Amino acid sequence: MSAAEVNRGESVPTSFQAVPFSRTLWIDPDDPTRLRVIDQRQLPHALSELVLGTVEDVVEAIKEMAVRGAGCIGVTAAWGMYLAALQAHTLTLEEAWTFITDSANSLVGSRPTAVNLSWAVTRQLNALRDLQSTDEFVAAAKEVATEITQEDIVGCRKIGRHGLEIIREVHERKGSEVNILTHCNAGWLAFVEYGSALAPIYAAHEAGIPVRVYVGESRPRSQGLLTAWELQQAGVPHVYTADNASGNLLQEGKVDLVIVGADRVTSRGDVANKVGTYLRALAARANDVPFYVAMPISTFDPDTFDGLVEIPIEEREGEEVTHVVVSDGEGAIRKALYVPGRTEVSNPAFDVTPAELVSAFITERGIVSANELSLKAFAGHISPERSSE
Amino acid sequence: MSAAEVNRGESVPTSFQAVPFSRTLWIDPDDPTRLRVIDQRQLPHALSELVLGTVEDVVEAIKEMAVRGAGCIGVTAAWGMYLAALQAHTLTLEEAWTFITDSANSLVGSRPTAVNLSWAVTRQLNALRDLQSTDEFVAAAKEVATEITQEDIVGCRKIGRHGLEIIREVHERKGSEVNILTHCNAGWLAFVEYGSALAPIYAAHEAGIPVRVYVGESRPRSQGLLTAWELQQAGVPHVYTADNASGNLLQEGKVDLVIVGADRVTSRGDVANKVGTYLRALAARANDVPFYVAMPISTFDPDTFDGLVEIPIEEREGEEVTHVVVSDGEGAIRKALYVPGRTEVSNPAFDVTPAELVSAFITERGIVSANELSLKAFAGHISPERSSE
Repeated sequence: MSAAEVNRGESVPTSFQAVPFSRTLWIDPDDPTRLRVIDQRQLPHALSELVLGTVEDVVEAIKEMAVRGAGCIGVTAAWGMYLAALQAHTLTLEEAWTFITDSANSLVGSRPTAVNLSWAVTRQLNALRDLQSTDEFVAAAKEVATEITQEDIVGCRKIGRHGLEIIREVHERKGSEVNILTHCNAGWLAFVEYGSALAPIYAAHEAGIPVRVYVGESRPRSQGLLTAWELQQAGVPHVYTADNASGNLLQEGKVDLVIVGADRVTSRGDVANKVGTYLRALAARANDVPFYVAMPISTFDPDTFDGLVEIPIEEREGEEVTHVVVSDGEGAIRKALYVPGRTEVSNPAFDVTPAELVSAFITERGIVSANELSLKAFAGHISPERSSE
Repeated sequence: MSAAEVNRGESVPTSFQAVPFSRTLWIDPDDPTRLRVIDQRQLPHALSELVLGTVEDVVEAIKEMAVRGAGCIGVTAAWGMYLAALQAHTLTLEEAWTFITDSANSLVGSRPTAVNLSWAVTRQLNALRDLQSTDEFVAAAKEVATEITQEDIVGCRKIGRHGLEIIREVHERKGSEVNILTHCNAGWLAFVEYGSALAPIYAAHEAGIPVRVYVGESRPRSQGLLTAWELQQAGVPHVYTADNASGNLLQEGKVDLVIVGADRVTSRGDVANKVGTYLRALAARANDVPFYVAMPISTFDPDTFDGLVEIPIEEREGEEVTHVVVSDGEGAIRKALYVPGRTEVSNPAFDVTPAELVSAFITERGIVSANELSLKAFAGHISPERSSE
């Protein structure tokens, strides 16, 4: 990675004082031409930042999963377009536009499955396309990136409020602790603040509803570690489990509902999300446990229908499976060999949960069932005025 | 562990020369009062043996999973009863019997889920119960342990032959490589030789049928590493994957059939096996892929019916999830911290796959469908003469 790594494992950015809800990325207050992001590869062993000064830095940070999570990579890419506009500032208008569109292609190609990335980049391109100076490119790109960031934050808070009602209902019916299973990390680390799948959980915790979160490890990258870290910061009771345990937990009635995030949702409601989500959905259905997908509307991709056929599933390096990041328990972390030998590895990063297994989507515009008409209406592709807010 | 650890990581027992099919345990040729076993906690990083001289050593080796796998712990426990008889040799008959029954209880309590363990110990107790001298205890215990060992070996070879026909049929229909998904390790390391789920795969490979095995990691203990190691020794093509990948592999049509082992099968055909098996069964059913369970008849427990209610699911230490055994790539292995923080862990070691998800059982007596009448007939509990051999 070309980006400089600063403050590894020691500095805590100011915004972290506001635990439990903090930020994954921010413009450097001392240098508005640099983006600062939390380096998620170090968590939960260490909290450190990356400084991204160019669009190339951003592409690398997304590819290497220093920043990850559907919302977070979308917003980071929006800021990547701003950095590209800054880099192109001294070029001719034509050269600058070429650089910006090349940068857009690099960003979109950095992770193929999540749609938020191409959505954010396309929105930037549309805003910049007809401008007449590189000054305007910079100003517009900054404005759009700021808008996308704010929308992400506001949207996640709304997802939390809508999802809270589902948890509240279970609590009122049950009269005791609500047990929620989640997969991967769709908390604030996966967005700018608050998160999607964890937003209703944070909202319930704040509202005094007792919740307990079963956190699936989510091998191979074990993003469950990020979820456990977030929940620990926020004081939310949680239990960490191997991915394989989810079937047993559901069988034994230990889970009241499942909430996961999404990387792309097709027009009919098929859900691409972190590999293993589909297995949780099958087990939830087999045990009559509701399975919710929390997502901002920007995750909806109206141009796809059959998720299994149309969504590209990213195949990542086998080293993600064969090596793990471990700690000596005293702060020193390193990559260690977990799977020895010359074994071939298959490492799909996502799978597709068919719409029929989804109880409902929790979006910033309310709860919506998994069918094309409802989803398109919510997303404004049929009649935006029909949406609930 | 009180048992001496010898030859760690360097010595290869004689029987290993006979790769690919070797043994997990044998009586020390230089000292027939000691049992030697492969220490499976070191594999695949290193191949080493444990020497077990007392029944307490055996209990510890089973608890700590130095020996593991339904068949292997059953046979090891049978030899544990022989070691107990040796330890009791100089006692009075009454004292000796008390020591032997206490030892039996310790062995049965060392792992609660697999039925082979209590089956082997009960068979020893029944053989010893009416004997009139401690000499006879020793002689009978050795004879029974030898019988159980031989039956295990012969049974696994027959499972291989019966399962081979299923693989052959897929190959003839398809005309190309047969892709088989397995979970955990039910190869020769889980028995004495050959294995259950891997036996048909070894038989197909020997018969020249092209097979490719998708090996699920099987967190938290990652027994998939043992399976990959076995297959590599045997030259069987295989692909290692995170557990979460199985849904995607099945969705994408990359798997022709699933074969797993079992730790206990109830009278109606519910299957307790390594945690995560149930998730593979659900995904196989959802994608119309046959799901086979390979098991010796000793795994059948006619005294249970509803697996979810009646089979005790062992909850193991959280450290199995939070720590991993890693290598520096040059032979040195150590336990490292994978899940930092003060997170509570849930670690069920098994789950229950309902009979309705099982296409058929592959046993040493042939292929049998998952229903009470067929299973009991095969196991000889209704009319033994109806079994196929």
